[in-house]
Amino acid sequence: MSVQIEDSEVDIVIAALHPNLTPFLEAWRPFFSRFHIIVVKDPELDSDLQIAPGFDLKIYTKSDIEAVAKSSSINFSGHSCRYFGYLVSRKKYVISIDQDSLPAKDPSGLVTDAVAQHITNLATPATPFFFNTLYDPFRSGADFVRGYPFSMRCGVPCVLSCGLWLNVADYDALTQSVKPNERNTRYVDAVMTVPVGAMMPASGINIAFDRLALGPALLPGVHFTGEGKRRWETLEDIWSGLCAKVVSDHLGFGVKTGLPYVHREGDGTKPHGSLNKESEKVKLLDDALPFFQSVKISRNATSAVDCVAELSGMVREKLGAVSPVFASAANAMDEWVNLWKSVGAQAE
Amino acid sequence: MSVQIEDSEVDIVIAALHPNLTPFLEAWRPFFSRFHIIVVKDPELDSDLQIAPGFDLKIYTKSDIEAVAKSSSINFSGHSCRYFGYLVSRKKYVISIDQDSLPAKDPSGLVTDAVAQHITNLATPATPFFFNTLYDPFRSGADFVRGYPFSMRCGVPCVLSCGLWLNVADYDALTQSVKPNERNTRYVDAVMTVPVGAMMPASGINIAFDRLALGPALLPGVHFTGEGKRRWETLEDIWSGLCAKVVSDHLGFGVKTGLPYVHREGDGTKPHGSLNKESEKVKLLDDALPFFQSVKISRNATSAVDCVAELSGMVREKLGAVSPVFASAANAMDEWVNLWKSVGAQAE
Repeated sequence: MSVQIEDSEVDIVIAALHPNLTPFLEAWRPFFSRFHIIVVKDPELDSDLQIAPGFDLKIYTKSDIEAVAKSSSINFSGHSCRYFGYLVSRKKYVISIDQDSLPAKDPSGLVTDAVAQHITNLATPATPFFFNTLYDPFRSGADFVRGYPFSMRCGVPCVLSCGLWLNVADYDALTQSVKPNERNTRYVDAVMTVPVGAMMPASGINIAFDRLALGPALLPGVHFTGEGKRRWETLEDIWSGLCAKVVSDHLGFGVKTGLPYVHREGDGTKPHGSLNKESEKVKLLDDALPFFQSVKISRNATSAVDCVAELSGMVREKLGAVSPVFASAANAMDEWVNLWKSVGAQAE
Repeated sequence: MSVQIEDSEVDIVIAALHPNLTPFLEAWRPFFSRFHIIVVKDPELDSDLQIAPGFDLKIYTKSDIEAVAKSSSINFSGHSCRYFGYLVSRKKYVISIDQDSLPAKDPSGLVTDAVAQHITNLATPATPFFFNTLYDPFRSGADFVRGYPFSMRCGVPCVLSCGLWLNVADYDALTQSVKPNERNTRYVDAVMTVPVGAMMPASGINIAFDRLALGPALLPGVHFTGEGKRRWETLEDIWSGLCAKVVSDHLGFGVKTGLPYVHREGDGTKPHGSLNKESEKVKLLDDALPFFQSVKISRNATSAVDCVAELSGMVREKLGAVSPVFASAANAMDEWVNLWKSVGAQAE
């Protein structure tokens, strides 16, 4: 049931929000150097990028984005620029890690290979239809627990791997303001499948996915005016993750969470300036969640691009009147589907 | 939202399948000695029990079982004798640990207090309606991840805490036969809520529950003739766990899995003798699962005892013709409901 993933099937997509990528790339060199890398420069970033030599790397800038998405209203600025990389990748798998995140150490002090762990997560089956209390049954030294139905032990393809963060955890601006000095030091040595039907916040900081199976559902939908440079400001990945989970559930695939960890420094700023719009976002998520928990995609939708096209219509219908943010998200999703069909669906 | 649990509100229920309980009790003395203990002697065990002195402990034997459940066809032998302890307990909370399980050490070598961890799990809320990728948000040093809806951060009461096992993992007879020397050495330092709607195998080896809220759903339903002395033979706890999860979901409560670990020795026997009936059990679980995944309890059922009464009727109707094991389980559940109403519902 496990699949073999070749190095040549993987793109690493990096969103460059700050010009100097060299320390980031040097820290990741032992793990990135075997792979093709796509760097997407935040279209609002003016300075030239500094890039360590010796990588198989392609840079996309504002002019590339404009050339491909010129008639689109999608906002590819800030963290959302990575979606352009997802679009122009020609590989089956994509791994994306934020620029403020470095390789993490495990409890024994060894530096961990987040790339290899993401690939393992995607290469081994997921088990969304029954919960295994012994975590990932495909890990060496583990198995299915007593009582796990034998008919379900083959699992299903894993299409999304959500990694976690040591040091600066991924909190919203409110929580970060309340606990500015809290650090996540607990390394939980586990990978698990998120059960079918269970919704989750999929952070974009440290993820990997099967681009051919799920790519169109990793999408730039929600973007707040003037925001998107700092994680605690963004909901783009949360929205994208909800879409991806709904689509994965509908298509019978699996989503994993847990390992790998990255060591996250954050960007050193404090979130107080972001709090002014936070109450609006709090309400938005509370409004959106019942939609995602109850939405049913039709049987006619048999691919991720079909599912997103259908989902955008339902977002417009059910949430469009609740907030202009949702109406814009529906429009962005439609435009994204068109872009994906014309550009993203191409593969090597 | 967290509740305060007093020592006097907790019963520790131990099923005595082997006569010498002294080493077990001595190993657990630092953690058990503050609590009232109920020992239920397997009614098929002839030898007298050996019990270490110095515990607040009450022993129930075959004659007690016959006095209370004389007109019942429920099989309380082997591991199932613990259900009699759940029935006669007068406490709000019950913790139950198998006789072959001792306190576990954490990765730093410290002996862990499984009782305290179970109490913490029950005292802090569960979060079944949205998945928190940072595990238990109520643990010190953790919180809700960015994107977790604020309206859901209060959580709901946790009514069932399922702990895990180091050393001998809880495998079925087939897996144990294939991997006789495999040992579980990975201590995953996490507690999580199993999402609403997700079914799981709840092992009875190391559990705790809110007896007043969920007790009637921890029930002796499935028992195979001549079996029940060895964990890999039993499905009693798997069946009970599926009932408990369905009931907990219906009532809006939460179920947690993860910490605490116990160090499990197993009973030293090999499972080959248990394999003859294993293929029958494999099929039974595969038949039963779609039922549990789709069963809907009516709104009229507002307590665990209501839910079990309704569930038994649906088991009889939907599964009774599939196997006599299910028909017997439905009968046992009906009898259990009656016993619970007359005996179990009494509280201090």
